[in-house]
Amino acid sequence: MPRYALKVEYHGAPFAGWQRQKDQPSVQGAIEAALSALEPGAHTIAAAGRTDAGVHALGQVAHCDLRRDWDPFRLSEALNYHLKPAPVAITACAPVAEDWHARFSALERRYLFRLLTRRAPATHDAGLVWQIPHRLDTDAMQTACRHLVGRHDFTTFRSSICQAASPVKTLDELTITEHEGVSGWEVRFFLRARSFLHNQVRSFVGTLERVGAGRWSPDDVKAALDARNRAACGPVSPPHGLYLAGVEYPEDPFADQD
Amino acid sequence: MPRYALKVEYHGAPFAGWQRQKDQPSVQGAIEAALSALEPGAHTIAAAGRTDAGVHALGQVAHCDLRRDWDPFRLSEALNYHLKPAPVAITACAPVAEDWHARFSALERRYLFRLLTRRAPATHDAGLVWQIPHRLDTDAMQTACRHLVGRHDFTTFRSSICQAASPVKTLDELTITEHEGVSGWEVRFFLRARSFLHNQVRSFVGTLERVGAGRWSPDDVKAALDARNRAACGPVSPPHGLYLAGVEYPEDPFADQD
Repeated sequence: MPRYALKVEYHGAPFAGWQRQKDQPSVQGAIEAALSALEPGAHTIAAAGRTDAGVHALGQVAHCDLRRDWDPFRLSEALNYHLKPAPVAITACAPVAEDWHARFSALERRYLFRLLTRRAPATHDAGLVWQIPHRLDTDAMQTACRHLVGRHDFTTFRSSICQAASPVKTLDELTITEHEGVSGWEVRFFLRARSFLHNQVRSFVGTLERVGAGRWSPDDVKAALDARNRAACGPVSPPHGLYLAGVEYPEDPFADQD
Repeated sequence: MPRYALKVEYHGAPFAGWQRQKDQPSVQGAIEAALSALEPGAHTIAAAGRTDAGVHALGQVAHCDLRRDWDPFRLSEALNYHLKPAPVAITACAPVAEDWHARFSALERRYLFRLLTRRAPATHDAGLVWQIPHRLDTDAMQTACRHLVGRHDFTTFRSSICQAASPVKTLDELTITEHEGVSGWEVRFFLRARSFLHNQVRSFVGTLERVGAGRWSPDDVKAALDARNRAACGPVSPPHGLYLAGVEYPEDPFADQD
């Protein structure tokens, strides 16, 4: 059966997360239903990252197996047609080898977290940013980030229900940038790693927000990391500022596309 | 009665436009209802630009008269509290002279139009951009813009129900910029003028899109302008890419604010 890689963008709000669930809408379920409209029968797709409820994606990657040979452009168009009106879009599609796997072939995941700091409620960006009313000291946050980058035991920043075999991971990048946009002052977090633990990004962001607010020092973050204890973590940020931004593979399956 | 200037941001989708209407939700009606919650009785506010149904604002300006002296920060906070859950936010508030008028004191209006070019349906930006599936030749569009900037009879680019006394207006700026964003290639139009005719921006954008698509030449736009005939206009763009971005006054009433 020919296998296709799909680049997927979605708004997380209406979904209980990526993963198919019996009684709740999921992104996986929406795409599998669209595939069933093209080739009747059950479909099971796999994704690079199983995002939680409310988390968005700009560049999630999944793969599907189909019986027919599809022109990749026509396949993406047909899927987008059947996905309507769900806020899920196939933004690229490419044939891949039968042993290529969206999850296991991935070398790196990239996440973006958007935090809007202003008092007035967000209108256009509502549900797309985590909004807090106070300004943040991003210099202090950057200093704290340096304690987190690298290979560490991230037990402190891992959900208690995380199923990863080991809490030791290598965080390749954690960068904070500021944007003075029309809607206010936005702080963006960029993260890169081969893989992340469950709730790791949201645990980082919630903890770093405390540093930006002056409640924690950068050294407190180091102490929390060293504690290797979930109870040492700061608050976990809400999901709706988080985006799975992209996934890297040994070769970009979408390299030929726009 | 003390008068206050309000800077207002809103998502246009749920509203029949700025202007209060009997049977439909309006931005004016939402703010007036919030004012009634603070000081019982009827309120009538005036705005710099009466945006159409579906049009957004980043920096609409309105004024209101109140009986009490309000601390401007507390007034904006109280209005935002009562505006919930409508996607309307007071982003700044300032006391102004009793003869200051949001509409008649304004020297300039600024509009932004966002156009997203990609095939896959927009997810995060759905309802916030005009989406078209094809690429645009922005060089040709810029050339066409040069015919529109300046003082002209804009009858061609004016809705047939426009109530302005004269179709002669001075367009101070019409600039097109490109953004390669995560969601795709975005074309942004920036416009500045003392005032605009009804549907003028959307008539410009819809016509310029035809130039970008190669269906019209830049000289066709000049010919359409010179025709001074509504029938010579290109298609009128949809409202949901349009934003009232800001309003200029002899003195910025919000200058003291963040």
